[in-house]
Amino acid sequence: MLKLKHRIATIGSHSALQILKGAKDEGFETICVCEKKRVKPYKMFPVADEIIEVDSFKDFLKIEKQLIEKDAIVIPHGSFVEYLKSDKIKKLKVPHYGNKNILDWETDRRKQAKWLTQAGIKMPKIFDKAKDIDRPVIVKFHGARGGRGYFLANSPEDFEKKIAAHPDEEVTIQEYVVGVPIYVHYFYSRVTGELEILGFDKRYESNADSIGRVAAADQITTNLQTSYTIVGNIPLVVRESLLPYFIKIGERVVEESKKLEKPGLYGPFCLEGIVTQDLILTVFEISARIVAGTNPFVAGSPYTFFKYNEPMSTGRRIARDIKQAIEEDKMDLILG
Amino acid sequence: MLKLKHRIATIGSHSALQILKGAKDEGFETICVCEKKRVKPYKMFPVADEIIEVDSFKDFLKIEKQLIEKDAIVIPHGSFVEYLKSDKIKKLKVPHYGNKNILDWETDRRKQAKWLTQAGIKMPKIFDKAKDIDRPVIVKFHGARGGRGYFLANSPEDFEKKIAAHPDEEVTIQEYVVGVPIYVHYFYSRVTGELEILGFDKRYESNADSIGRVAAADQITTNLQTSYTIVGNIPLVVRESLLPYFIKIGERVVEESKKLEKPGLYGPFCLEGIVTQDLILTVFEISARIVAGTNPFVAGSPYTFFKYNEPMSTGRRIARDIKQAIEEDKMDLILG
Amino acid sequence: MLKLKHRIATIGSHSALQILKGAKDEGFETICVCEKKRVKPYKMFPVADEIIEVDSFKDFLKIEKQLIEKDAIVIPHGSFVEYLKSDKIKKLKVPHYGNKNILDWETDRRKQAKWLTQAGIKMPKIFDKAKDIDRPVIVKFHGARGGRGYFLANSPEDFEKKIAAHPDEEVTIQEYVVGVPIYVHYFYSRVTGELEILGFDKRYESNADSIGRVAAADQITTNLQTSYTIVGNIPLVVRESLLPYFIKIGERVVEESKKLEKPGLYGPFCLEGIVTQDLILTVFEISARIVAGTNPFVAGSPYTFFKYNEPMSTGRRIARDIKQAIEEDKMDLILG
Repeated sequence: MLKLKHRIATIGSHSALQILKGAKDEGFETICVCEKKRVKPYKMFPVADEIIEVDSFKDFLKIEKQLIEKDAIVIPHGSFVEYLKSDKIKKLKVPHYGNKNILDWETDRRKQAKWLTQAGIKMPKIFDKAKDIDRPVIVKFHGARGGRGYFLANSPEDFEKKIAAHPDEEVTIQEYVVGVPIYVHYFYSRVTGELEILGFDKRYESNADSIGRVAAADQITTNLQTSYTIVGNIPLVVRESLLPYFIKIGERVVEESKKLEKPGLYGPFCLEGIVTQDLILTVFEISARIVAGTNPFVAGSPYTFFKYNEPMSTGRRIARDIKQAIEEDKMDLILG
Repeated sequence: MLKLKHRIATIGSHSALQILKGAKDEGFETICVCEKKRVKPYKMFPVADEIIEVDSFKDFLKIEKQLIEKDAIVIPHGSFVEYLKSDKIKKLKVPHYGNKNILDWETDRRKQAKWLTQAGIKMPKIFDKAKDIDRPVIVKFHGARGGRGYFLANSPEDFEKKIAAHPDEEVTIQEYVVGVPIYVHYFYSRVTGELEILGFDKRYESNADSIGRVAAADQITTNLQTSYTIVGNIPLVVRESLLPYFIKIGERVVEESKKLEKPGLYGPFCLEGIVTQDLILTVFEISARIVAGTNPFVAGSPYTFFKYNEPMSTGRRIARDIKQAIEEDKMDLILG
Repeated sequence: MLKLKHRIATIGSHSALQILKGAKDEGFETICVCEKKRVKPYKMFPVADEIIEVDSFKDFLKIEKQLIEKDAIVIPHGSFVEYLKSDKIKKLKVPHYGNKNILDWETDRRKQAKWLTQAGIKMPKIFDKAKDIDRPVIVKFHGARGGRGYFLANSPEDFEKKIAAHPDEEVTIQEYVVGVPIYVHYFYSRVTGELEILGFDKRYESNADSIGRVAAADQITTNLQTSYTIVGNIPLVVRESLLPYFIKIGERVVEESKKLEKPGLYGPFCLEGIVTQDLILTVFEISARIVAGTNPFVAGSPYTFFKYNEPMSTGRRIARDIKQAIEEDKMDLILG
């Protein structure tokens, strides 16, 4: 295999194992920047050729020079965005896979709503004022905290009662859409000009995905409430007749991003929503980078199997995009 | 690889990606007959050597001559049966994989009940008259509409109240069996004379598979009702100690079919039921062809891995059956 | 491939298909000891080079001599432990993979609690007297019966009412922990000295995993109760940020076992618990041998894919441990 000059680096959490494994499978050497207390998985699973230990992910900038010297390209993921914040990411000098400016459109909920709505995608109604709550709503805290503490409310009174436990939190009050959660994993390559669907999953949330194991009568006598802490992910496939619809939605998201933030969104992204009984996807969030919901598919998904004759994860697809850009001398298409 | 004269064709929906991918992996050229508005997945995933676009699946007969000229063998699936109906399928002149006459036993619920009952399989009680409802029942509309609108009722009064919204529908009133849904994927080859289990899944239904995420108290105050629109499928495995039982049931279904509709059922089929806490499978439906529940396993299932040293999907198993029939000059065993 | 003198044997149930397939993939000949009435899966799936049929698993001792003559090493699994009991297993003369004495620590709940508690692992509170029940509890019967009949109770009165149907049963009364069930699959090799995580699953229980499909109002009017019969298993992955924690817990379990029962636990083991919304694992059971929850991963899991360049199931990992011990002349490290 061609020895590649560049190395692939990311920070050790979220989907790092997949990213680094995929990079190795494409022939890159790999670097895991890792907090000392989190290093064990990256020793147990030999996907990192080098581990750079830091006391805290906040020290990432201190080791940036090392990464530049090693010809590293960094791959952002959810924890990367959470710990570095988009303003620090924008100032990074080490080459970064993906359009940095698009991250603002992911983290700012108003910009996100503008993007998706202009792309013609259905979103849950947002209530700016609690007093307007006229249907079931879900109350979400800002920042990627894995859904901890999210709660349901039915009325302004119900909301006020429950928010009292979180006096200093900024929240979003969203319509609660009834249907099944689904996460659609896309990949758009500027190198090939093609959009791909790489798979689907649903999250496994504590206790939302097990409260239903308690009989209704017992739930009521024991006063059980739903919580939404993400614990993991479960693989699934969708009805084949839904694929044209999901493809169309993905195309619109990419097209709209080109108008809003040149050169637009590329690499992996995810629409996170609810499919109602009318088979409409209501999207409550977009992630403009790899999501952990691709982790069930580190050896490929049923969908990547249709196209590739080898195990193709989202992490590996990123590495292949970079490799192809290197080979075709199109690095400007993948770094942003 | 041997160049095969025949091509494998199906219509673009349901499990077409899997069927065509499997056919290619066995060395066949493939044809996807596709509605113009649904063509994108078959361009995104390169499993069709040729795409024949039609305005509507109802135009299938118009392109039948093309298929015959191309030496195509068509593979039926759920959407194929839904759009063409069994009477049109019976009149097809293009070679058809599987016993066409068995499709009547799948689509006619009375014939289906006769088949399964004579095979000694437990089925939910059917209530011919709503006034006889004396336990929880599920009310199903005729035709494969993905479970949309199915509802539960507890009594004749409850039924009458809920059916009022669907004045012109033909319905089946079935006992609601308490236990976990399970779909058993079988394959019976007349070429090898062997029955195989290819895997298991459960459906992912909106909102049946997420209504339990809402705490019971909130469900009641917001008056949530269960609906059964199929959105996708989730892979699973079963207790190994249940396999002898599932094998016995599958054998009985095949044996009984030989008596009812010569030469009987062959190719893939699926028993769709509920496993109760006594570990009894109550079957509410049989599909006498490939089902979408095999789609999680396009790269093989844990079960096909035991037997085959390569990824073996149900779609590929069909293609291998055809290839083996061609090689052994036994085409009469697989076309019907 | 090197022809190995030893054969791998187990009894036909639980995870035998996986164990035997894994052994064949490592180059061993395999033997399935099987009850006559359960033999079909082991003929359908060609993983056993030889099937020894017995009338009952209780006759295992009658064929032990045959196994010894064939140079067999037996692999214990859940049904093996259930049918032979640990006292018979201890008297086996045929070589046995794993520390036999550790099985007492698995089957005796008080010893198990000592082991896990001393390892610093959180367990649900056990109520020795029903009159002390002051929170939701789950009532479990002794012996591995697949969770049949387990019930919830809220108070001493509720317990007494429900236990009346089971007058002669020994039960454990456990705190009911609210969160999502998760099964952590570990492997500790004395040959390599390394601990590995091989995957995660959740059980699929009748009707616990489908009662939530019934709307709360309907559950109440039809008086539905939760039951816990294990029907199968569903694959999942966990948040990558939880891996350091799960690794630490696994290490502690192994270390503590070395103190309690020399030379300690080795081979596959499983922690079965609930992850609460605070992301703490409360463990309600340890299995000190392969569990059926590894069956979704007979072709490898997302985790084994990180380390191995071929499909690596838990069954195959066992066979590789044995092969490596043979090659390095360290059989004393794996037989106990």
